[in-house]
Amino acid sequence: MGTLDDIRVDGDRLWQSLMEMAQIGALPGGGCCRLALTDEDKAGRDLFVRWCREAGCHITMDNMGNIFARRPGRDDGRPPVAMGSHLDTQPHGGKFDGVYGVLAGLEVVRALNDHGVSTGAPIEIVVWTNEEGARFAPAMISSGVFAGQFDLDFALSRVDETGKSLGDELSRIGYAGEEDCGAHDLAAFLEVHIEQGPILERDQLPIGIVTGGQGQRWYDVTVAGQDAHSGSTPMAGRRDALAATAALVLAVEEIALQETPHGVGTVGALTVRPNSRNTIPGGVDFTVDLRHPDDETVTRMGQALRARAAQLAADRGVDVRIDEIWMNPSVKFDARCEQALRRAARVLGYPHRDMISGAGHDACMLARKVPTAMIFVPCKGGISHNEAESAEPEDLAAGCNMLLHGVLALAAAGLP
Amino acid sequence: MGTLDDIRVDGDRLWQSLMEMAQIGALPGGGCCRLALTDEDKAGRDLFVRWCREAGCHITMDNMGNIFARRPGRDDGRPPVAMGSHLDTQPHGGKFDGVYGVLAGLEVVRALNDHGVSTGAPIEIVVWTNEEGARFAPAMISSGVFAGQFDLDFALSRVDETGKSLGDELSRIGYAGEEDCGAHDLAAFLEVHIEQGPILERDQLPIGIVTGGQGQRWYDVTVAGQDAHSGSTPMAGRRDALAATAALVLAVEEIALQETPHGVGTVGALTVRPNSRNTIPGGVDFTVDLRHPDDETVTRMGQALRARAAQLAADRGVDVRIDEIWMNPSVKFDARCEQALRRAARVLGYPHRDMISGAGHDACMLARKVPTAMIFVPCKGGISHNEAESAEPEDLAAGCNMLLHGVLALAAAGLP
Repeated sequence: MGTLDDIRVDGDRLWQSLMEMAQIGALPGGGCCRLALTDEDKAGRDLFVRWCREAGCHITMDNMGNIFARRPGRDDGRPPVAMGSHLDTQPHGGKFDGVYGVLAGLEVVRALNDHGVSTGAPIEIVVWTNEEGARFAPAMISSGVFAGQFDLDFALSRVDETGKSLGDELSRIGYAGEEDCGAHDLAAFLEVHIEQGPILERDQLPIGIVTGGQGQRWYDVTVAGQDAHSGSTPMAGRRDALAATAALVLAVEEIALQETPHGVGTVGALTVRPNSRNTIPGGVDFTVDLRHPDDETVTRMGQALRARAAQLAADRGVDVRIDEIWMNPSVKFDARCEQALRRAARVLGYPHRDMISGAGHDACMLARKVPTAMIFVPCKGGISHNEAESAEPEDLAAGCNMLLHGVLALAAAGLP
Repeated sequence: MGTLDDIRVDGDRLWQSLMEMAQIGALPGGGCCRLALTDEDKAGRDLFVRWCREAGCHITMDNMGNIFARRPGRDDGRPPVAMGSHLDTQPHGGKFDGVYGVLAGLEVVRALNDHGVSTGAPIEIVVWTNEEGARFAPAMISSGVFAGQFDLDFALSRVDETGKSLGDELSRIGYAGEEDCGAHDLAAFLEVHIEQGPILERDQLPIGIVTGGQGQRWYDVTVAGQDAHSGSTPMAGRRDALAATAALVLAVEEIALQETPHGVGTVGALTVRPNSRNTIPGGVDFTVDLRHPDDETVTRMGQALRARAAQLAADRGVDVRIDEIWMNPSVKFDARCEQALRRAARVLGYPHRDMISGAGHDACMLARKVPTAMIFVPCKGGISHNEAESAEPEDLAAGCNMLLHGVLALAAAGLP
């Protein structure tokens, strides 16, 4: 007989679950398309619910379609320690983003069952609805309602491209629960996720302990100059919106580099008008995404952007309009939850590092209401939101073992 | 009785012709849509032919649909002195681009008739088919065939977006002539055109004498980096195709500024992949248009572009592919034709300056075969290829008087 510290999850079973779930909405390139609240999402949820029931869990749902699969505790009146993530994917998504966090939770329950381990508090696996935001914007909408960041009515009334509402689609697939979203009491929440970035792979580490999420500001920028003929308009006197934009794209890069190593700044989308080979562009629309773990730094980065834009507008005779469309404050994860994960890494002997989550996750929403922490595992090339998304079975098993031992610590478990 | 030097065109009649022609294919915003070989183009041609016949001209056509309206000379065996331009427009074109050069030719004939002036050589008004290239690419296709720059079969087989060929559409509207394109002998060719640039307006001059057309190189550039998540990918190690492109857009500007005042360089069209707010762009396609009156300078500008691209590719870990898709050598107009125009400006007392044509024109093609020159008149704000295209009646009359006296000098005219 070993101790609780000797328990490990079954990595092969976890992998098989992932591969079976990946059949639902499978794409030719190896990825998945299970957009939120489609028939594919329903099929994925149905499979998850069946597996949970087979593992002895009791299922409840709230009115945002969040699913709670509960394994009772010895003291079942205590609020549960929860694990989870999401089952929906991007249109050309991978096999691991989100679904890994859900099925790792299932594997934890199965492993506890295998070893006959009871926990003091109940534990729950949670599936959060529409994390990706690919079908219904914004992203993380249901964990956001749960954490009080979005109104329920706002969330249920979001529509997809064809005008169908989130609320109607939730009812249609039979996942509109009775419980008020947010009323479900949680003692703690742990989420394991592929990193979706290159750091763990670069550092050759299997585990990242995520200590928080970045503060973030999103902007829509419009540069207005003057269309003119590319051949007959001398360089002097041009009001070229794309040349001014090019200088701003480089300014975004410089602003982020000044906040090394954590600051990031990206122009991801850009549209040129009229976009004709022999016409000087009269207009450009583009996006700016600024992030840093420290909110004041993000604010400073935004101010630097506005200052550079004003200077370029004056120098180049163009108008630059900057609209801040979203500001998301940074989030610090819970010290006690992090400590449970650090102990788990020690027990398991996994090399690891602290990290900041660059992407948004349900855990970043939950952290505003519930003691929360996250575990990252490497993914190949840092590539995600892509059919090529890939992760090693042993890394996925390691992350799942971290989840297991983190939950055990938080739920005060005991062997039979 | 005055001398030939005292003859002037009727500016009001010219303006009325322009406004009547502008009714064909009129757009709500004040512009015109007479795409080549459409029913609107046919209606415009029919009106022009009727006017020419009423002015005593004899009409012939060649097998590219170019129309030659001939006013006989005293020595009708001499090759004619020709004036002209095009009647087709951009999809959202203006009232003056091209049509002004054609109807100014008509007004010259009418003014000669009014004053009973005979010319030694015959004079002709020419309408060149599909100058714009908006319906059938490339532009200047029929003046190009005439000048031996394109093959007839190539030109006739060009298709529009719906798959209809230039040759079939020419027959359909009844403008496929018998004469071989290019066989029509011309002694000289003069074209008057709105400047489509800001120089004459800036200098407050009514007339530009165009001494040539720029050399030109067009490139398609593809920058390949790596898509990655904008939040979770540190600045170090990014392979951001758009940031690399931004540096290249500024390099194009710098390269042109190094060849001040004549060098121009433009990135007019640009497409970002995947063009998503929170994804570092993995790919960008864009165009480069480099022009200078001196071909060696254009070559040097192109070499500088390739050198900067190679350096940026190495610095930023991206691949840059540059395809030169078109090279158009510069053209020098004919000294004798220019001299006729300089004399005309002196006789008429018009302030004027020499210019290089930044845009392509039928005259730039003709110059490779026939002694050719061009006259520019100002247009408002330098704006063209736009419904807002605008020119002052007195400037249009001045350009037409230049055409009249240029033709008189070249055709050795006499009063009755």
